[in-house]
Amino acid sequence: MTRATEQAAGARHKTQPLTYGAIEYLRTIDDYHGVPRGTAIFGRQTVYGYPSIGRVLTLEPGLQQHFAHPFWAEEKVNGYNTRILRVGDAVLALTRGGFVCPFTTDRVTDFIDTRVFEDHPDLVICAEVAGPGNPYLESSPPFIGDDVRFYVFDFMRINQRPRLAAEDKYALIEDYGLPAVTRYGRFTAKDTKALLEIFETLNREGREGLVFKEDAADGHAAKHVTAASALSDIAATAATLNDLPPEYFTNRILRLVLYLREQGEHPTRDLERALGAAFLESLDATLAQYEREKKVFHSFRCRFHDRHNAEAMIAHLKMAGGRQINISRRGLEADGADWILTFDRNYPAINGLLSSVLHGDLIYD
Amino acid sequence: MTRATEQAAGARHKTQPLTYGAIEYLRTIDDYHGVPRGTAIFGRQTVYGYPSIGRVLTLEPGLQQHFAHPFWAEEKVNGYNTRILRVGDAVLALTRGGFVCPFTTDRVTDFIDTRVFEDHPDLVICAEVAGPGNPYLESSPPFIGDDVRFYVFDFMRINQRPRLAAEDKYALIEDYGLPAVTRYGRFTAKDTKALLEIFETLNREGREGLVFKEDAADGHAAKHVTAASALSDIAATAATLNDLPPEYFTNRILRLVLYLREQGEHPTRDLERALGAAFLESLDATLAQYEREKKVFHSFRCRFHDRHNAEAMIAHLKMAGGRQINISRRGLEADGADWILTFDRNYPAINGLLSSVLHGDLIYD
Repeated sequence: MTRATEQAAGARHKTQPLTYGAIEYLRTIDDYHGVPRGTAIFGRQTVYGYPSIGRVLTLEPGLQQHFAHPFWAEEKVNGYNTRILRVGDAVLALTRGGFVCPFTTDRVTDFIDTRVFEDHPDLVICAEVAGPGNPYLESSPPFIGDDVRFYVFDFMRINQRPRLAAEDKYALIEDYGLPAVTRYGRFTAKDTKALLEIFETLNREGREGLVFKEDAADGHAAKHVTAASALSDIAATAATLNDLPPEYFTNRILRLVLYLREQGEHPTRDLERALGAAFLESLDATLAQYEREKKVFHSFRCRFHDRHNAEAMIAHLKMAGGRQINISRRGLEADGADWILTFDRNYPAINGLLSSVLHGDLIYD
Repeated sequence: MTRATEQAAGARHKTQPLTYGAIEYLRTIDDYHGVPRGTAIFGRQTVYGYPSIGRVLTLEPGLQQHFAHPFWAEEKVNGYNTRILRVGDAVLALTRGGFVCPFTTDRVTDFIDTRVFEDHPDLVICAEVAGPGNPYLESSPPFIGDDVRFYVFDFMRINQRPRLAAEDKYALIEDYGLPAVTRYGRFTAKDTKALLEIFETLNREGREGLVFKEDAADGHAAKHVTAASALSDIAATAATLNDLPPEYFTNRILRLVLYLREQGEHPTRDLERALGAAFLESLDATLAQYEREKKVFHSFRCRFHDRHNAEAMIAHLKMAGGRQINISRRGLEADGADWILTFDRNYPAINGLLSSVLHGDLIYD
């Protein structure tokens, strides 16, 4: 981002000035002149937003259409996206929106050997953070028992938009022993059958899916998910049904049925029951919680090393949520040298709706 | 509607001029100055739009809030709303939107003894038309085996908005032997327990629910539906998932779980499977139809006495659907003295989406 672009963007309120401790930075609020939302600017160091990767709902035509060249298949992990960089002596981790995340920044050195920045000071590590101890998502992959894990899936460079090519990426991961997403191999669009078999294994294990990346710097990319992913997304979020756009649910139902079809399968009674249960058990629990607690909320529990980061995380969540504050801090307690932050996220739409309908209000729909 | 209001509305393009045979009329396209959408004007005879009736999602607080006075409980039938009137020598039946419906008009005398108009020329009969032979809805109540039936549920008068009081309504129904929705009795807001028991019977029989109407002319009204209604709506429409607003589905899931809760029940495995099947079996059939026919459509088969009405019905469906014509006539064949019209309704959203995703297009959602 040139200085001129930055100024133009700022002038149009497209950037937001922020601080993390003594560090001042800007983030871009919207896509602007080809600069993606979530780009973060630390003085002369710009970290571009991680690009959106499109989804194919049917694998075979999707690969045929988008991959004329060989591509790598990597596991898609159900977590949140972070970009990790060094600014002066500090290693910082950004959210998708371009905020420094106090939690991810606090924990990054548990998982990432930051000596990589000594040799590559302009590196940006793109990773997924997942696990039941994360501060953002109500769900986590079945293979993470507690806390969180980091899974590197790409690298970029400061002031550059392209993602590194696979060869460079895998060499860096190996050289620095970085935790990475599982790599399933290098394929071409003719390998649909082998990939569909991998999907069936992922599906049985409740894993999310694969991301395909052309074997070239900043090549084409696409993602595809399992039926299990569609189901677990619904089960994790139906409890707060009205706080997501309703197409969140219908899109996943469609993904599920298209996934089955491409596997040559039809809905089984077990799958039908699982889909119904994903909605009904979640919402039944919501009604019970609302009766008991007079509100619908989800409790989060996150481990920090630094108390300041825990305090900053609460402030970040309250600020990043916009005008309506839906975060209630419950506690911050020492656990050995660490601090355990607990907080609730409240869901305004389902709370408002239940308050209204349990009061007997008329609905015109 | 005064002449001045009519002219003002027309001047603002709030009315649409229409003809049915030699009869000229106007319908109101939007709510305007308290005149509801769907009001139809035949010269000096105005038939006001039937009012929207609000829905309560929980019965007990709903009745407490809205019914200080006794009310009648009547069955809610899963069909389409019509208003029947006499214009000159003709008996006409209007759609909710204020169009003369050629099908309903063609068939009305099979079910409604029109001698009622000889004694009450200014009467407007409000009825639900339901059954597998209807031209509008993909679903019909389980208790109608073929063709259609008419169920009178209210009366209005020409040039007047109020619905008649219960006493007058039931007297007219009895005096002229009119087919009517089932009347479950007169209740007060304290009778929730008895009404919940009626709902359980309706639910077991796959019936839709009840409408409550204060025992007074144009009194308060509210409706409430069964879990079975939510399920059957989903099963009937999930096949064309993207052609309805997605909240159509999430609203019904919420109704279902609130219904159970008020009955003191929790989701059973059978109910979970039924909900999953409502989505997955419908969509699986959709994919099979798309593979076989290269499009998603629903076939309708309707009986007419008058061939002209069948022709007019196709024209009406094409015109009422707006700019995009999604009706394909299949055939019109004599059956004794009657005519059987067959046509397909095509669903543009699901067709467009399937074309795109089966072609492998990238989705950003």
